[in-house]
Amino acid sequence: MFTPHTRLGILGGGQLGRMLLQVAIDFDLSIKVLDPDPDAPCARIAPEFVLGSFQDFDTVYAFGKDLDVLTIEIEAVNLEALKQLQSEGVRVFPQPEIVEIIQDKRVQKQFFRDHHLPTSDFILTENREDARQYADFLPAFHKLGKGGYDGRGVQRIATPADFDKAFDAPGLLEKAVDFEKELAVIVARNQRGDVKTFPTVEMVFHPEANMVEYLFAPASVSEEINARAQFVASRTAEAFGIVGLLAVEMFLTKDGEILINEVAPRPHNSGHHTLRANDVSQFEQHLRAVLNYPLGDTHAHSYAAMINLLGAEGYEGEARYEGMETLLETPGVHPFLYGKTMTKPFRKMGHVTIVDKELESLKRKVENLKNAVRIIA
Amino acid sequence: MFTPHTRLGILGGGQLGRMLLQVAIDFDLSIKVLDPDPDAPCARIAPEFVLGSFQDFDTVYAFGKDLDVLTIEIEAVNLEALKQLQSEGVRVFPQPEIVEIIQDKRVQKQFFRDHHLPTSDFILTENREDARQYADFLPAFHKLGKGGYDGRGVQRIATPADFDKAFDAPGLLEKAVDFEKELAVIVARNQRGDVKTFPTVEMVFHPEANMVEYLFAPASVSEEINARAQFVASRTAEAFGIVGLLAVEMFLTKDGEILINEVAPRPHNSGHHTLRANDVSQFEQHLRAVLNYPLGDTHAHSYAAMINLLGAEGYEGEARYEGMETLLETPGVHPFLYGKTMTKPFRKMGHVTIVDKELESLKRKVENLKNAVRIIA
Repeated sequence: MFTPHTRLGILGGGQLGRMLLQVAIDFDLSIKVLDPDPDAPCARIAPEFVLGSFQDFDTVYAFGKDLDVLTIEIEAVNLEALKQLQSEGVRVFPQPEIVEIIQDKRVQKQFFRDHHLPTSDFILTENREDARQYADFLPAFHKLGKGGYDGRGVQRIATPADFDKAFDAPGLLEKAVDFEKELAVIVARNQRGDVKTFPTVEMVFHPEANMVEYLFAPASVSEEINARAQFVASRTAEAFGIVGLLAVEMFLTKDGEILINEVAPRPHNSGHHTLRANDVSQFEQHLRAVLNYPLGDTHAHSYAAMINLLGAEGYEGEARYEGMETLLETPGVHPFLYGKTMTKPFRKMGHVTIVDKELESLKRKVENLKNAVRIIA
Repeated sequence: MFTPHTRLGILGGGQLGRMLLQVAIDFDLSIKVLDPDPDAPCARIAPEFVLGSFQDFDTVYAFGKDLDVLTIEIEAVNLEALKQLQSEGVRVFPQPEIVEIIQDKRVQKQFFRDHHLPTSDFILTENREDARQYADFLPAFHKLGKGGYDGRGVQRIATPADFDKAFDAPGLLEKAVDFEKELAVIVARNQRGDVKTFPTVEMVFHPEANMVEYLFAPASVSEEINARAQFVASRTAEAFGIVGLLAVEMFLTKDGEILINEVAPRPHNSGHHTLRANDVSQFEQHLRAVLNYPLGDTHAHSYAAMINLLGAEGYEGEARYEGMETLLETPGVHPFLYGKTMTKPFRKMGHVTIVDKELESLKRKVENLKNAVRIIA
């Protein structure tokens, strides 16, 4: 049942929250946002911005108790408060039990294994010393169980000497995958159990910053591989029984296998282009899912790419943008700024979406624009 | 030069301002909005909402004096204040001199004639008695010079007896046009003089409410007529020398003539579908124009339609929406609500955009959805 002024709360006021807010205007919802940073991307644009920690029980509880629906744009939230609110009748989506599984990469990975979802081989480790005994498992990645984010919390362990860089905390050793491509599929599921996937995308990671540098949609893969990626993503969402979005990042191995890398229970960097290239955007789809509306059609009307705008190396301070004119004068190109005042090296300051009727001209635009903008201080 | 946090003010906080605000988030502007209604569509979503009259000199002057750029989403604003602000260095776009011409339909019409822009024949009238002498000019429309809006300020005068309905104030008698279709083209022009038009659209008016009921884009007209409509619109924007958007409403007569009906120096109801069907939306284009950025590509990737959601007859009070599920489950369909709490008959409460790859299936969707939603109290 469609009700304007539904009271929706969002834990986290970053760029994902910013795009959710932007899209939520269509539906005339009453939205408030919780974030500890007075300069967060949502701070100036949220109809109601509450300054406080989404990791603190009392703060989250007080924030949520008068809401109809509570959702998140970051996983590192206080789960006890979410469970309490849920027990008192607030619709909390994604469900706290699912966020709990995903928050801990060890539990997440075990979940894949238990549900026969394809994923790379792994070993749980308790601390750095514990990890050292698995030298014959290398090359591998050591991942921190909890608290990793945006490229932090992952170390490549190629040789036994690299174990010095391993985390001295509960983590997991994940077999390095010889992959051809990194793919992602964003799935939505609403309370009625409807499931819809967005077209598969292909991500290219920044070699130093370990985060998505740019992305193409749809991925250039065979129909068979695409179908498998879509199937794995849908099955994962159903295995969780999630309500809301689930972003499923996958490896396509050189042997043609699809292996889940990790998942995020929220809008994701790999879906920003849907704002420009698809009938429904990931943000609107998330709102439709958590509000239990019919899910939108995810059809793409254009080829699309997305480039993250990262703070330039060597600059820290109040952000200035060089080269935006070049972007703005290219057909089908849109910058989206996150409203962050201060830049630092590799900080995500915004992104650019590019749409085109032709894949080849899209790729040329990406090449031309990849280094067009520099964010300096 | 692209500068985030450019201080942009908008006079008027209605639905057009609401969509401008929504789109402006992309560019990270610092926006404030002036409107006398505490329940205006922008009230809850504007980063800064100033309650006050955009018709009052002191209020507009105080609102504008610290801005970089000041724009409007309604024409009925205090021009003296805009001129004062302009003389003090605020970039006011559209320029107050142009708004002044357009505010008065008499002056606007005379402007078309003086600039050899095609428009229907007309006679200026001073009052009702004055109008009565032009019985041989009927059938015609009597239009109020100043203050008409959204279907108000226009009377059809078919016979001399109808002159009783004529306005007893300065107005004009406009020869009724035997038209085939009503078309509209939205043009943008920036300070550098770049001009870009959106594809021509076709409007279907509500017979009773005298406002756009729905719209198709692009218009189903010959290439030659389309080219003429596009040319007339561009020439009109250039004749004004406007910076910002100009919406040009035109009649296509049964003889194949294009005649300008009227123009609006701002985003317009006939361009809402551009949010969903075009590479750049009219709202982003307006921002690009007034900020003197490169204009965006107006290419349409899909056929589109727009249906206004009007308050149902016989209902006045707090709005409730029936039938939204039907909209939400149709592929390519998006409701956009204006955030108005109270409905009354024919009040514009929102709109729906529909996109499709095929014109025929688009038209079927419009037929199915035209009466799907009822806004009652």
